[in-house]
Amino acid sequence: MKKLLAITALLAFSIAFSQQKPKFTYIRPLIGTAKMGHTFPGATVPFGSVQLSPETDTVAFEKDRKYNGKVYEYCAGYQYADKTICGFSHTHFNGTGHSDLGDFLIMPTVGKLQLNPGTADHPENGYRSKFSHTNEVSQANYYKVKLEDDNILAEMTTSQRVGFHQYTFPKSDQAHIILDLMANIYNHEEKNVWTFIRVENDTLVTGFRQTNGWARTRTVYFAMSFSKPIKNYGFKNYDQENIYNGFWRKFDQSKNFPEAAGPKLKAYFDFATAEGEKIKIKFALSPVSTAGALANMKAEIPHWDFEKAKSDGQNLWEKELDKITVETINDEDKVNFYTAMYHAFINPTVYMDADGQYKGLDQNVHKADGFTNYTTFSLWDTYRALHPLFNLVQPKRNRDMIKSMLAHYDQSVHHALPIWSHYANENWCMIGYHSVSVIADAIAKGNDDFDTKKALEAVVSSSNMLYNDGIGDYVKLGYVPEDRSGASVSKTLEYAYDDWAIAQMAKKLGRNDVYETYSKRAQNFNNVFDKKSGFMRPRLAGGTFKKEFDPLDTHGQGFIEGNAWNYSLYVPHDVVKLTDLNGGKEKFTQHLDSLFTMQLPDKYFENTEDITRDGIIGNYVHGNEPSHHVAYLYDYLGQPWKTQERVRMIIRKMFHSGPDGLGGNDDTGQMSAWYIFTSLGFYPVAPGSDQYALGSPLVKKATLKFENGKTLVISAKNQSEKNVYVSKIELNGKEIPRDFISHSQLVNGGELTFYMSPKPKK
Amino acid sequence: MKKLLAITALLAFSIAFSQQKPKFTYIRPLIGTAKMGHTFPGATVPFGSVQLSPETDTVAFEKDRKYNGKVYEYCAGYQYADKTICGFSHTHFNGTGHSDLGDFLIMPTVGKLQLNPGTADHPENGYRSKFSHTNEVSQANYYKVKLEDDNILAEMTTSQRVGFHQYTFPKSDQAHIILDLMANIYNHEEKNVWTFIRVENDTLVTGFRQTNGWARTRTVYFAMSFSKPIKNYGFKNYDQENIYNGFWRKFDQSKNFPEAAGPKLKAYFDFATAEGEKIKIKFALSPVSTAGALANMKAEIPHWDFEKAKSDGQNLWEKELDKITVETINDEDKVNFYTAMYHAFINPTVYMDADGQYKGLDQNVHKADGFTNYTTFSLWDTYRALHPLFNLVQPKRNRDMIKSMLAHYDQSVHHALPIWSHYANENWCMIGYHSVSVIADAIAKGNDDFDTKKALEAVVSSSNMLYNDGIGDYVKLGYVPEDRSGASVSKTLEYAYDDWAIAQMAKKLGRNDVYETYSKRAQNFNNVFDKKSGFMRPRLAGGTFKKEFDPLDTHGQGFIEGNAWNYSLYVPHDVVKLTDLNGGKEKFTQHLDSLFTMQLPDKYFENTEDITRDGIIGNYVHGNEPSHHVAYLYDYLGQPWKTQERVRMIIRKMFHSGPDGLGGNDDTGQMSAWYIFTSLGFYPVAPGSDQYALGSPLVKKATLKFENGKTLVISAKNQSEKNVYVSKIELNGKEIPRDFISHSQLVNGGELTFYMSPKPKK
Repeated sequence: MKKLLAITALLAFSIAFSQQKPKFTYIRPLIGTAKMGHTFPGATVPFGSVQLSPETDTVAFEKDRKYNGKVYEYCAGYQYADKTICGFSHTHFNGTGHSDLGDFLIMPTVGKLQLNPGTADHPENGYRSKFSHTNEVSQANYYKVKLEDDNILAEMTTSQRVGFHQYTFPKSDQAHIILDLMANIYNHEEKNVWTFIRVENDTLVTGFRQTNGWARTRTVYFAMSFSKPIKNYGFKNYDQENIYNGFWRKFDQSKNFPEAAGPKLKAYFDFATAEGEKIKIKFALSPVSTAGALANMKAEIPHWDFEKAKSDGQNLWEKELDKITVETINDEDKVNFYTAMYHAFINPTVYMDADGQYKGLDQNVHKADGFTNYTTFSLWDTYRALHPLFNLVQPKRNRDMIKSMLAHYDQSVHHALPIWSHYANENWCMIGYHSVSVIADAIAKGNDDFDTKKALEAVVSSSNMLYNDGIGDYVKLGYVPEDRSGASVSKTLEYAYDDWAIAQMAKKLGRNDVYETYSKRAQNFNNVFDKKSGFMRPRLAGGTFKKEFDPLDTHGQGFIEGNAWNYSLYVPHDVVKLTDLNGGKEKFTQHLDSLFTMQLPDKYFENTEDITRDGIIGNYVHGNEPSHHVAYLYDYLGQPWKTQERVRMIIRKMFHSGPDGLGGNDDTGQMSAWYIFTSLGFYPVAPGSDQYALGSPLVKKATLKFENGKTLVISAKNQSEKNVYVSKIELNGKEIPRDFISHSQLVNGGELTFYMSPKPKK
Repeated sequence: MKKLLAITALLAFSIAFSQQKPKFTYIRPLIGTAKMGHTFPGATVPFGSVQLSPETDTVAFEKDRKYNGKVYEYCAGYQYADKTICGFSHTHFNGTGHSDLGDFLIMPTVGKLQLNPGTADHPENGYRSKFSHTNEVSQANYYKVKLEDDNILAEMTTSQRVGFHQYTFPKSDQAHIILDLMANIYNHEEKNVWTFIRVENDTLVTGFRQTNGWARTRTVYFAMSFSKPIKNYGFKNYDQENIYNGFWRKFDQSKNFPEAAGPKLKAYFDFATAEGEKIKIKFALSPVSTAGALANMKAEIPHWDFEKAKSDGQNLWEKELDKITVETINDEDKVNFYTAMYHAFINPTVYMDADGQYKGLDQNVHKADGFTNYTTFSLWDTYRALHPLFNLVQPKRNRDMIKSMLAHYDQSVHHALPIWSHYANENWCMIGYHSVSVIADAIAKGNDDFDTKKALEAVVSSSNMLYNDGIGDYVKLGYVPEDRSGASVSKTLEYAYDDWAIAQMAKKLGRNDVYETYSKRAQNFNNVFDKKSGFMRPRLAGGTFKKEFDPLDTHGQGFIEGNAWNYSLYVPHDVVKLTDLNGGKEKFTQHLDSLFTMQLPDKYFENTEDITRDGIIGNYVHGNEPSHHVAYLYDYLGQPWKTQERVRMIIRKMFHSGPDGLGGNDDTGQMSAWYIFTSLGFYPVAPGSDQYALGSPLVKKATLKFENGKTLVISAKNQSEKNVYVSKIELNGKEIPRDFISHSQLVNGGELTFYMSPKPKK
């Protein structure tokens, strides 16, 4: 008996000890919700179509727009410093620098019906409510907050296409669910083109919202199901009379008239509630139709069990996090790491119904045949590290994203791949044609199970869209002339890099003709290098460099989101030549050193978006993507210890686990992908190549389970705050150089061991 | 040899003699294009989705609207008296009293590009052109006109879903085809919600137009194919900048940028033309998508042979006219008869793609399974004679129209059949729930191969839509009270008739419970009969009749499109009781007599829509549908010769073959159906019954070929202008009474012979 008890006790102890917290519980969505992270605290599943999250403010007006002003702050609808919540809407970007979405704002209230949101200073004058972070919970796929004004507990979770709300009411015979179809996240009030709503029966409402905003022609369809019958409902029409004049018959839309349409509508649904009664809402979306939305709801959440939906979604997160299991120096690093994975797996978003139907660029319905269709491609940001991360740990999804890009190309009247794909629209944001990088990187890394022949045709076509953003001049002159197209140097440099990516891809596909052409184009960065100043510099159509030139200024100097100092380092595909242009290894190393140590005068911070002094180290601007590869350049110069030192410094300075824990916009996961790679100890400086530059891992250990069935265990021996340098690296027991590692070396699995040290090994 | 020649000559002579003109050549679409007929002169095929026709004026403004004013005149976009043509658009109503459609206005021009229409007084200031009727041809499915300003010959024809344009240009290197997406036929300028256009390649353009007008949420998709490649093209955006600011990239939409979207766009396509060169355009429509439009084009006109398309469509008209072949007193009667058939077979319109897909009330795509889906149901007009005419000569189409109504019912959030079905919308125009009459009439006449069980459920539901137009009060009180719902007497009378139709249908379907309920409701006309005045009179909710009452006034007296004098005669389902209320046969006969002879003071003509002195005989107003049965009431009073005299007088006064040959709006074929029935010698006074009231045929002979394979030959012996009276009628050789004939008597075929006489037989 004693022996049995002992064994039992031991067993129990082992079980308790091995039953660590699920990884998803380390996810803290609040990271980045203060200041410029632009993340949202609400619920979503990996790459889900729905992001159900609170708005702490709604529409802001164009005339209020200032840099670092009200509009820019609300790209995700939420700012941590705010004290009121307007409601909960179903679509949010993760970390963009421009706003949109915010579809279908829902708000529960009791008492007198108020259909305007009220103001932050006087929430009692509208439907918004005071709240406090003490009564707020934000987890993976679960958000909860106490709405203080009316004492209502709001909880929400999601499945891929459905937002699931649960509101716990006080006793009331005037309980309301408000659906404000006019609310949105955008800097223009007049954003709705049309909205449409039908009360199908006493628990089901359907409709759509059509907007003209960042996406020019965007429609989202919904089906909304209540857990109990509606007592009364009504609409208010702010555009036309609320009496619907059907030419002869007149209907009062404010009282139980089951349909309405127009650009400015709000709806309300009334109930009587007992003390503590829960009203639940399932709110499904579709890109195609209300019938599609309803089918999505039935397919994904055919029940009313809120806890089950919540845990189903959290299990999806756990499965994603299983791809990389980490042990860290401290718990905060674990929070940051898994939250970075969380943020890296929100965008792009699935954009199709359960049955595969989606809306194409032609506004027609298409069926995704043999792939999952995605949208929300912020490619200027994500080609750099996010899609390379996908090639490592989400290869199937990345192939589907590429197939989505090829479908976009098929539907494009410009015969071009996406630049910024947004809900059946091209929104043309930022520069370059970086789809080509995403495709080239997948091919370089053997993740090429898609129509590579069409892909090659597509990248060639996209890079020859001559009427687009200076490409015509670029092809003719070898550079973009500043007097004909602004940010000309940034464009030239990024086109040159994209062209190099195309060349690599062409080579791998056996097309030497294309390889030759694009290898030449890839050298175009040389055409904007100004020997005299030592920087990349804007050049005019006539051939001369622009006279006025300040390499520290980010405005009007030929660059976007950067200055000559930073951007001149953007030749990731030919660092050898870049070194040459910069006077050789020694001079270039010194140049890089000074980037991190120089002092920027104040004037360069005024009127600069995305940048605060906190986000800068010297003149290195981590918040701006073109800088993301810079710290790794020392690997190319034979001084890897400087990379190791810099990246550890950057990761410690730019990321922490508080609400303002991101040093700039998350940019749909790019910032988080940078964090993940850097924590693991390597970074893809030039996607399209199979090489990663090595750095200084932050983890103690990381176990990567690849889709090919293999596992890689990364270990950092003697890991600590101080031990930032890497004295030796072994792959499967054999020493390898400390500068680069290849993709196949990683995905073939085994053990990658870093030996950490407090002193640089030169 | 001589014998052979003689035989040949005889043969040739016989052939020439028997080869009469095809019937379709008698169709004169210009009838009704002057004044109030509101017909259009352009091209269409029977029940076609496309009506390609010229606009002599475009948008007019609400503030200009006056009774008989500019807006009202342009319901079909064309007025015969005008001297300029703005362009040719693809959708037009036939003869409505309210405006809409006018989608996709196309205009060919040469020389300086002008994108505004110009004015009627100064066409040279815009794209419109002077024209003259001398150089205009309007036939079934063919319209031609010389556009004088630029010396361009315009010709057009159609297939079911495609408009086929042919423009013969002079020599020019500045030839333009303008597509004005802002043009419309409506009384509001701000009608577009959104338009969208893509240049797919150098001969194909696609897109859509979404409007908020008479239909609240209406979208029409198109595919436009040119017979030769476009040289240049551009868009002009009147709502936003014409520079499309894609957030960073800027595109000039005026020069070959292949897509645009917004509420205010115009497009132009430039060519160089040789002298006499023809540019052709195939312009296909779809209710569902641009892909659907393109598929429709390929299915219907997969070639560029204009003459073939024209004659294919004309053959469709010939086939329709084959259903009733007439011999007439004079050629003008033949023109009027076949033109009436033409006008009767334009609306309703097919509303689905070649593959059966259409847009439903829920704005989702549906597939018509086993029926052709129709829209454009102006039911307040057409239940009276048009749908009864369909039961006679278009039974299959009528069943499909009923199936379309049942699908509408399925999709309706009000669980109601259509009142005025308009391109995936209910536009709620006019009063009553007359779908029930259409369905009941089909069942009464054995044309019932549809889901009659669902139909019964639908008619009961529609007649119990309590929040609709006084129905709640009607059900509760037995009448509509004027103080709660205007035009209350008209509504009460028409609901009572509709209810009687439901009762007949219920009886035939073996539902005695429903029959009892609705037979009671059918008597509700008694509740608004005022013994004191002898007229139907508005009654208040409290029970008393409204004090102020003028039986000749059409305003504020409780009637719509009529006065008490006329409308009190609207009890078509119980003329026995009506006679009773009017003091018995003799008194009622005198009452009817005076209707046709009394003199109306001038004041009753001011401010009365649809009415001019020309359209009135005494106080009988043929332009207003509620009167259409009135002349036949003598049949119920034992004085058929008075019916015979009146109907001949009406038909001679209200119809002729000039442009102003219709005495009022054609009302989507109702006026023309009245003409056809009356010409043939009978009329369906109470649809829902299988009885027709007999009259005085105008034809000499009519051969009706029914879908059941049988043929009825109607002959009027001794027919002439003077011989308006009918002394005897024989059916298959046996004499029958001269008051009524049944549907089965007609459709069983044989010979129906009227013996005409100059004197009444009493």
